[in-house]
Amino acid sequence: MVASEIRALFAVAARPEIVSLAGGSPFVSALPLGAVGDMVGGLIASRGQDVLQYCTAQGDPVLREQICEVMSLEGVAAHPDEVVVTVGSQQALDLITRVFVDPGDVILAEAPTYVGALGAFAAYQADVVHVTMDESGIIPEALVAAISRVSAQGRRIKFLYTVPSFHNPAGVTMAATRRVEVLRICEQAGILVVEDNPYGLLGFEGDPVRPLRAHARDGVVYLGSFSKTIAAGLRVGWAVAPPGIRDKLVLAAESAVLCPASFAQLTVREYLATQPWREQIKAFRELYRERRDAMLNALAATMPPGCGWTKPGGGFFVWLRMPEGIDSKAMLPRAVSSRVAYVPGTGFYADGSGSAYARLSYSLPDPAQITEGVRRLAGVIGVELTLRAEFGPVLRRDG
Amino acid sequence: MVASEIRALFAVAARPEIVSLAGGSPFVSALPLGAVGDMVGGLIASRGQDVLQYCTAQGDPVLREQICEVMSLEGVAAHPDEVVVTVGSQQALDLITRVFVDPGDVILAEAPTYVGALGAFAAYQADVVHVTMDESGIIPEALVAAISRVSAQGRRIKFLYTVPSFHNPAGVTMAATRRVEVLRICEQAGILVVEDNPYGLLGFEGDPVRPLRAHARDGVVYLGSFSKTIAAGLRVGWAVAPPGIRDKLVLAAESAVLCPASFAQLTVREYLATQPWREQIKAFRELYRERRDAMLNALAATMPPGCGWTKPGGGFFVWLRMPEGIDSKAMLPRAVSSRVAYVPGTGFYADGSGSAYARLSYSLPDPAQITEGVRRLAGVIGVELTLRAEFGPVLRRDG
Repeated sequence: MVASEIRALFAVAARPEIVSLAGGSPFVSALPLGAVGDMVGGLIASRGQDVLQYCTAQGDPVLREQICEVMSLEGVAAHPDEVVVTVGSQQALDLITRVFVDPGDVILAEAPTYVGALGAFAAYQADVVHVTMDESGIIPEALVAAISRVSAQGRRIKFLYTVPSFHNPAGVTMAATRRVEVLRICEQAGILVVEDNPYGLLGFEGDPVRPLRAHARDGVVYLGSFSKTIAAGLRVGWAVAPPGIRDKLVLAAESAVLCPASFAQLTVREYLATQPWREQIKAFRELYRERRDAMLNALAATMPPGCGWTKPGGGFFVWLRMPEGIDSKAMLPRAVSSRVAYVPGTGFYADGSGSAYARLSYSLPDPAQITEGVRRLAGVIGVELTLRAEFGPVLRRDG
Repeated sequence: MVASEIRALFAVAARPEIVSLAGGSPFVSALPLGAVGDMVGGLIASRGQDVLQYCTAQGDPVLREQICEVMSLEGVAAHPDEVVVTVGSQQALDLITRVFVDPGDVILAEAPTYVGALGAFAAYQADVVHVTMDESGIIPEALVAAISRVSAQGRRIKFLYTVPSFHNPAGVTMAATRRVEVLRICEQAGILVVEDNPYGLLGFEGDPVRPLRAHARDGVVYLGSFSKTIAAGLRVGWAVAPPGIRDKLVLAAESAVLCPASFAQLTVREYLATQPWREQIKAFRELYRERRDAMLNALAATMPPGCGWTKPGGGFFVWLRMPEGIDSKAMLPRAVSSRVAYVPGTGFYADGSGSAYARLSYSLPDPAQITEGVRRLAGVIGVELTLRAEFGPVLRRDG
């Protein structure tokens, strides 16, 4: 299941009778739309000659200062010169892969990993080698083993791609001690770390864990995004990179799109300058925490034995393990018939594995819809289990 | 002089004391900024949940219908399914090159050609072979000769890239008969045509010449843009391609940026649905015609003997030929000292030639500034000619 199949699924899942736990869309309706509309309207009327004009490829200088302020909330100290504004962090992923990867080069990534990253890596014919995770993120021994294995094959590892906080799709967070260890392992092996952190400010409990970039300025390219803290439809993300890499990213961005849209950049700049954005992020946090709770409660109340799931401390996603023998991709059409949708785990592995898992998102549906969606899904899994129990032996006798 | 050097030049040229004939920025201040602000404000307030959300990689379906209506003004008949919305037409150039070009493949392009296209082609290590133009566009015999030469070398030509109307930087338009001939030559040789037409609706005299895409549905990928007819800061362009190529472009776009910004797409959609956009394009035409006239009058009045220039029937650019022996790139610092900027012709050739030319843009400065800028430039060229006349022989004696 590649990215385009997932988009096709989303089209089906958008039908009103279906509870979609498939998408990863933020609940942008929670924004004060009237106030944002007034703000943008006034901005165009008063500064339209800049808002509607070309800008530089690296992005608006004032916005890059504000981005540094946003990152400081998580303990990242960066200079505006290190920041490159991109068309969502997806473009940053595309550009970093374009700059570093030749066909056949290896990229290390968590197992599972973000489907959009797999799409960008595949576009440049990178070979993704997955590294096993547990509830505390990448397992350092697995990382060391993967590096040894690839190096023994004489192949080049271009970078480790990681979503350390509130992982998409796994819903887990890399522990603080693990972060230090992963950085140490990569530094010793001379491997760049690409840290993708779109959900870092959307943690539900206590202070956020400091990003890897807060520990290491040189060996990390950090990717951020306003898609989840402001709005996805703006397509404003960014990369933070040491000067040598930054220069290459700016040149690549220029040949890819000339420059990011002033319209979106100056809107974000005005929003950060005039709107209560910290309070809005708190409101988003509360909203998503309530939805996370609805999902975890519904899972505990309805899922048949044999299922397991992660308990995300933030972000948008729960990673559901199916009972033994249930294939989440094969089951999807029956789930859609039962008016619930999810993304099969196969979308999140480069090698097509992952059919024992499903990604469930709680960001867009409301708590009642989430509860009903999980109930439907539990019913579908229950039927699958019954069918297996009744017909499985018959099939085995015939086989 | 690569794209990044040109951006650096633009930074210098932005100083207030300098008349910049360098940039190719549209005069967006001519838009009714208050009305556009009100429109966008209302759109966010009433439909923020869509405007601020992700969309599909191919782009908004209603906008794609409207794009077909816009293209029909020039005689292009296309179906919305054939349209892919992109982050400006620069992204379309990037994606089409990504889809078709392997390192070392040949792209044919006019001599000179658009600097942003050269940047995209270089990013994929294409080898650009220039085809000679005259005042009526590509010379068919030169195209045939280029195809023969490259084919004889056993190299693959992936496409012909052309800006047939109001060429950037050359300011010329391919004659209607030439269009038919160029299409016939390319069809016979099995070469795709990539037609880049951002200025087509900005013609100053009579009806627009029909795009190549209006003659041939299959062998042409057509690139359009709202950067010059609405506003560059939105970054909304498009490609029209036959289904097989369209599918590849959508997949490439998805891995590059996930989707174009709903924020910009729905703004354009609303603008086309509610604002007098045809009248606004007419107003832009009048504005740019007046500026073109100011530039041509100033050139005729002030340029020293030995200079030559094109007389654009639309678009933003005049292509100036220097008197013999004057190098436009070497002269640029002295021009900037004299408070006028332009882009040296070397930016528009893959092989570094073009130093005998300069691109002059009349889109952003007003007529009085244009007149003064051309006067200053003529003075700089005059001083160069005097220096050559006085010291050239001395230098030759020493050499």
